[in-house]
Amino acid sequence: MGSMVEGVTQVLIPVAAFIGIGFALVQWFLVSKVKVSSGLTESGSQNQRNRLIEEDDQEVGVDSDQLVFKCAEIQSAISVGATSFLYTQYKYLAIFTAVFAAIIFLFLGSVKNFSTKSEPCTYNKGNMCKPALANAFFTTVAFLLGALTSVLSGFLGMKIATYANARTTLEARKSVGSAFITAFRSGAVMGFLLAANGLLVLYVSINLFRMYYGDDWEGLFESITGYGLGGSSMALFGRVGGGIYTKAADVGADLVGKVERNIPEDDPRNPAVIADNVGDNVGDIAGMGSDLFGSYAESSCAALFVASISSFGNSHDFSAMAFPLLISSMGIVVCLITTFFATDFFQINGVADIEPSLKRQLLISTILMTAGIAIVSFTALPSEFTIFNFGANKLVKSWHIFFCVSIGLWAGLVIGYITEYYTSSAYSPVRDVADSCRTGAATNVIFGLALGYKSVIIPVFAISVAIYVSFSLAAMYGIAVAALGMLSTIATGLAIDAYGPISDNAGGIAEMAGMSHTIRERTDALDAAGNTTAAIGKGFAIGSAALVSLALFGAFVSRAGIETVDVLTPKVFIGLLIGAMLPYWFSAMTMKSVGSAALKMVEEVRRQFNTIPGLMEGTTKPDYATCVKISTDASLKEMIPPGALVMITPLVAGTFFGVESLAGVLAGSLVSGVQIAISASNTGGAWDNAKKYIEIYVENMNVYAGGSEHARTLGPKGSEAHKAAVIGDTVGDPLKDTSGPSLNILIKLMAVESLVFAPFFATHGGLFFKWF
Amino acid sequence: MGSMVEGVTQVLIPVAAFIGIGFALVQWFLVSKVKVSSGLTESGSQNQRNRLIEEDDQEVGVDSDQLVFKCAEIQSAISVGATSFLYTQYKYLAIFTAVFAAIIFLFLGSVKNFSTKSEPCTYNKGNMCKPALANAFFTTVAFLLGALTSVLSGFLGMKIATYANARTTLEARKSVGSAFITAFRSGAVMGFLLAANGLLVLYVSINLFRMYYGDDWEGLFESITGYGLGGSSMALFGRVGGGIYTKAADVGADLVGKVERNIPEDDPRNPAVIADNVGDNVGDIAGMGSDLFGSYAESSCAALFVASISSFGNSHDFSAMAFPLLISSMGIVVCLITTFFATDFFQINGVADIEPSLKRQLLISTILMTAGIAIVSFTALPSEFTIFNFGANKLVKSWHIFFCVSIGLWAGLVIGYITEYYTSSAYSPVRDVADSCRTGAATNVIFGLALGYKSVIIPVFAISVAIYVSFSLAAMYGIAVAALGMLSTIATGLAIDAYGPISDNAGGIAEMAGMSHTIRERTDALDAAGNTTAAIGKGFAIGSAALVSLALFGAFVSRAGIETVDVLTPKVFIGLLIGAMLPYWFSAMTMKSVGSAALKMVEEVRRQFNTIPGLMEGTTKPDYATCVKISTDASLKEMIPPGALVMITPLVAGTFFGVESLAGVLAGSLVSGVQIAISASNTGGAWDNAKKYIEIYVENMNVYAGGSEHARTLGPKGSEAHKAAVIGDTVGDPLKDTSGPSLNILIKLMAVESLVFAPFFATHGGLFFKWF
Repeated sequence: MGSMVEGVTQVLIPVAAFIGIGFALVQWFLVSKVKVSSGLTESGSQNQRNRLIEEDDQEVGVDSDQLVFKCAEIQSAISVGATSFLYTQYKYLAIFTAVFAAIIFLFLGSVKNFSTKSEPCTYNKGNMCKPALANAFFTTVAFLLGALTSVLSGFLGMKIATYANARTTLEARKSVGSAFITAFRSGAVMGFLLAANGLLVLYVSINLFRMYYGDDWEGLFESITGYGLGGSSMALFGRVGGGIYTKAADVGADLVGKVERNIPEDDPRNPAVIADNVGDNVGDIAGMGSDLFGSYAESSCAALFVASISSFGNSHDFSAMAFPLLISSMGIVVCLITTFFATDFFQINGVADIEPSLKRQLLISTILMTAGIAIVSFTALPSEFTIFNFGANKLVKSWHIFFCVSIGLWAGLVIGYITEYYTSSAYSPVRDVADSCRTGAATNVIFGLALGYKSVIIPVFAISVAIYVSFSLAAMYGIAVAALGMLSTIATGLAIDAYGPISDNAGGIAEMAGMSHTIRERTDALDAAGNTTAAIGKGFAIGSAALVSLALFGAFVSRAGIETVDVLTPKVFIGLLIGAMLPYWFSAMTMKSVGSAALKMVEEVRRQFNTIPGLMEGTTKPDYATCVKISTDASLKEMIPPGALVMITPLVAGTFFGVESLAGVLAGSLVSGVQIAISASNTGGAWDNAKKYIEIYVENMNVYAGGSEHARTLGPKGSEAHKAAVIGDTVGDPLKDTSGPSLNILIKLMAVESLVFAPFFATHGGLFFKWF
Repeated sequence: MGSMVEGVTQVLIPVAAFIGIGFALVQWFLVSKVKVSSGLTESGSQNQRNRLIEEDDQEVGVDSDQLVFKCAEIQSAISVGATSFLYTQYKYLAIFTAVFAAIIFLFLGSVKNFSTKSEPCTYNKGNMCKPALANAFFTTVAFLLGALTSVLSGFLGMKIATYANARTTLEARKSVGSAFITAFRSGAVMGFLLAANGLLVLYVSINLFRMYYGDDWEGLFESITGYGLGGSSMALFGRVGGGIYTKAADVGADLVGKVERNIPEDDPRNPAVIADNVGDNVGDIAGMGSDLFGSYAESSCAALFVASISSFGNSHDFSAMAFPLLISSMGIVVCLITTFFATDFFQINGVADIEPSLKRQLLISTILMTAGIAIVSFTALPSEFTIFNFGANKLVKSWHIFFCVSIGLWAGLVIGYITEYYTSSAYSPVRDVADSCRTGAATNVIFGLALGYKSVIIPVFAISVAIYVSFSLAAMYGIAVAALGMLSTIATGLAIDAYGPISDNAGGIAEMAGMSHTIRERTDALDAAGNTTAAIGKGFAIGSAALVSLALFGAFVSRAGIETVDVLTPKVFIGLLIGAMLPYWFSAMTMKSVGSAALKMVEEVRRQFNTIPGLMEGTTKPDYATCVKISTDASLKEMIPPGALVMITPLVAGTFFGVESLAGVLAGSLVSGVQIAISASNTGGAWDNAKKYIEIYVENMNVYAGGSEHARTLGPKGSEAHKAAVIGDTVGDPLKDTSGPSLNILIKLMAVESLVFAPFFATHGGLFFKWF
């Protein structure tokens, strides 16, 4: 019977993955029906385009044909810029990956001095396991696969996003609803491709590795952890590099354009405007994609590793073992159904419907997924089994696991809703921040920082409850599956998240193409909701990162053979203290990088305005390429030190100070990093929306209902309060898009790296204490 | 022999305390020789004043007699405002203290159900100890004494500071050197009074308590911990209330005066100017005094408690037991000698000498104190003894203790120097921040935040090394005496710290009295150095708070009978996570408070400018009293929620979730709070000095040498770069003077409160887990 159940499992997982990929392709096809190519080049699409122009409600004052052409041109510039940046970045990453793969192989190979002899298993007593050298080799392979999948996730996301942005702009001519659907579908393409790819590659790798490992599941799933490390290390550079790129351009463009020259955001006269739009795609899209893929890969690996040394592993129950993959498979199906609620079951009739619709996505996917978890938990798992718990075994029932996964899922919903509350201009926190702009930028910054700090409270309690319950029920396995639960609706989460930068770009294209005010207002409204969903996405990323890191931490501790991590020992305590400092060090680096790169950008933009005749008048085109180059060079150069800090710290701590100190460092960076990450991304989101609140409500009174009276007293654009709000927004840029979101990766990556290198540290680590 | 040595110890401690008090009085007398009373009221001082006026180098354009009168008037207004605020605050604190004293007595009394019977000792096996009820009573008494001494420390500091500010202004007419000496001597009065008082009250309390406790040192020193709790709880409200007061006034005054009305800082036409100057005295002086007194009291209590359950206590070796007090006694003598280096041995000939002179104070006191520590360690301590180490005993040698104390002392020096590097405009970090003002307030804020984050790195490593070494050598006792080592030069530390606000006030008085530009420039130069020393003082406060909290944490763990605090248990881990969140919650509260109070202040100042005719022209006086009232009311109302958060959290955590969770909370808040506190105070200090850099260098090119060319390109006052710098400075105000410095108290106070209530938590705590 076991093998029949295994057979079903072996079929279900790839089927779910292919359904996800298929669904993504369908969505892509639907998006592609909006044509941006001008009739001049593609004659076949002429009819289609005419249809679209006929439907146009004639708000646009300029010639539509020329408009479509302009949009296509801008889109192509953005796409080319983003692609070329990513290719350049990938060249650097290829070097890093090769070097680090060698390090992994050498370090892990050295554990048993590169012996090719089989060893007695560590946990599955009495059996023989494959040699450490084989583990070193397969870990390296898994690392490479993870890196590749991560890069692919980011790249595909960028491609669809740059494919969709001009289409969203064009759809905005019809109605807010059409534009919303286009942006949302494109987000869904990314979400489903990423979730399905991640699952498929992991599934295939496990089965391929199994051909060598056979019944040695301990070694098999130890090697698989390399997949998580590969995914996250690419995500780190993606987030940091992309974050520096996008914010250098954004801050640079705003400081000269909006503040000094008093021209609108995304004005085509601004030389940094293309770089800014490219940045949204390489930072917020590609970076976020890699990041969430990393979380997904890591939580799966952590759960698999703990399971492999528990009764599932010992009794070789593949369906139970594959529980994490089954949860993800179910997630794809649930998210698929959820998508229809946004695109088909409900209608977006106006701006006011956007945020509720996105919020509804979260709620619906959570409710459906809870049922999905129940199905998977009660069919795939034995009703009772034992879980490895730091040397002891813990008896667990299948309904325990159902609770663990569900609590992670619901904690994610709580974090999402709280993030929305603190970053959406529909509620009082952002309005208070907007209000504080009356007395200038200083109070705006003070209130914004305070808001960010405050927004940490409930998410931390939510995470704490999830940790407490899931750990109490199923030890570290419980935490790993709770993280998976939070990530199980990743396809939906990514869809609503990617929607943000796509709308942002759509607005930029509308402005650059010189479309009418109404179009810009519509895209602005989409973008304001996008700021909130981006913050929600970051909230998810951080919440899941906290759980994932803890699960990895637990796996690391198990693998390193530590039984207690006692705060009362000085090794651990100073690890904790220094670990808690690392997020600050890292943030200092990334923020300074953004600042310096922005200064360079400012100088270049100023230079162009001062030296290119006719630029301000709009008669000459600016030199976009130089600005793109500045962002590219700065981000590639500046991503190295913070990246090195994260990659090297666990190696140094483990090698010189041993596994206990390293455990302290991991715990410290986790508990401290979560707070900074949440507060940074919410502060930034709130500032951005406080600014938008002043802008949109004032200029577009008829679209918005509530709060417009209040906002009117603050505006309009160009008022003192608005200028103060722009300063807050600019300060928030590196916080919310560079340092904040990179911190998730910092905590996850250090944990997964420690886990991968645990056998090495346990054998050769702690040199410093051996010397003294 | 034992009793003879004890006799010497019993004499030396009070003698050192009286020397300290005597020296403070001498300094006070020297300051008092500068007369501010006008001849109209005090005829006896006529000659003196004439002499002073004759020495005046005639830079002052207005009639000197009238000038002195004006200064006296302003000084009196500040002093009256500060005194009346403190009295009002003390009324609230009296209520709090009474309530909390009752809580202490009831909670601790309930440990053994208010039994009056003696109990077998916990650590000193085989002996009988006094009943828990007696401990409850004496802890309550110690708490009251600590509270009283803390309040007294703050109050005396405020008195001398408001006594000295106008005197410093008047001396600035002579030369920078004279003004410096006056401000520094006044700081020394505060430093020595505080150090000596703290020592004396503790010494007397121990001897009085001993009359009841006799040989039960376990109970005696358990009760004495109440002294630390009393000291710190007053410090909390002093820091928070004073911090909100001063920054509401400062931010409010700046936002309308400097930004909107374009009048200079401290202009007498600004209605909030008196409140601003009062704030410096109640926040930076009284608050800082209470804070450092609290650290001192707590580290002494922690060391005494650990010693009492070690071999010193068991063998009743009073001199060894009194080692912490002897170190403090030696500290007073060393600081006394150090003071002469500032006031007599070296001359201040110009502005450029100020910072080196203050820095030299740190270095000299550290070097001399190292010798002092050696003397005390090798005479007062047995050459070998055992220290209690979480259930085990650890063999320690006297030279180990010498190293522990010294490493704390030198770590303090490192922190001081690093703080100086990051906050003084003589070095590149602040100049970079100033430079970033070219592109506006946003980059200034980004660079400033990055600077603060970066400034955390080395202090955290310094603290870590101190912790590792001192713990390895002498367990928790080592850490407690390391904290004492850092605080042993507290008199000098406070002197250079208090010097800052005094100079700030002196500048304010010069401006308000309408003194010449040159005088204002001199006081500005003093003030710029003062910003740096204030930051150094905060660095010390934080560094010592970290060590003290850890020592208290260790004492708490010992007293609660916990043997390990394992991060891998969910109780501890979620404690850690929530503990790390508390500093954010607390900062959100205090920053929002400052923001809201500042908004009220802005409205009032605007109202006065708009409705009082002749105010801008300087023909009518503003209504200072209303602004003072706004600050007073706001600070008293707003200090309650953050105060409650800190006081209630340990009680809730301990009572409902038990000692392990509480231990997690303490460790989490410690490792996270240290980082935020350091970065907040350095960011604020750097912004303040970046602003001053632009102001002073430009306007006073002849006084400053290096960097003036660079600064000139940024200035002058009123330039765009300067406006951006003012915004940064304003954002920094609540960070560096309200939330940052209050965080030290948060971490210390939660630790000492947990220590005091440990017997209660150990007996009745963890209700939540008992219920479920």
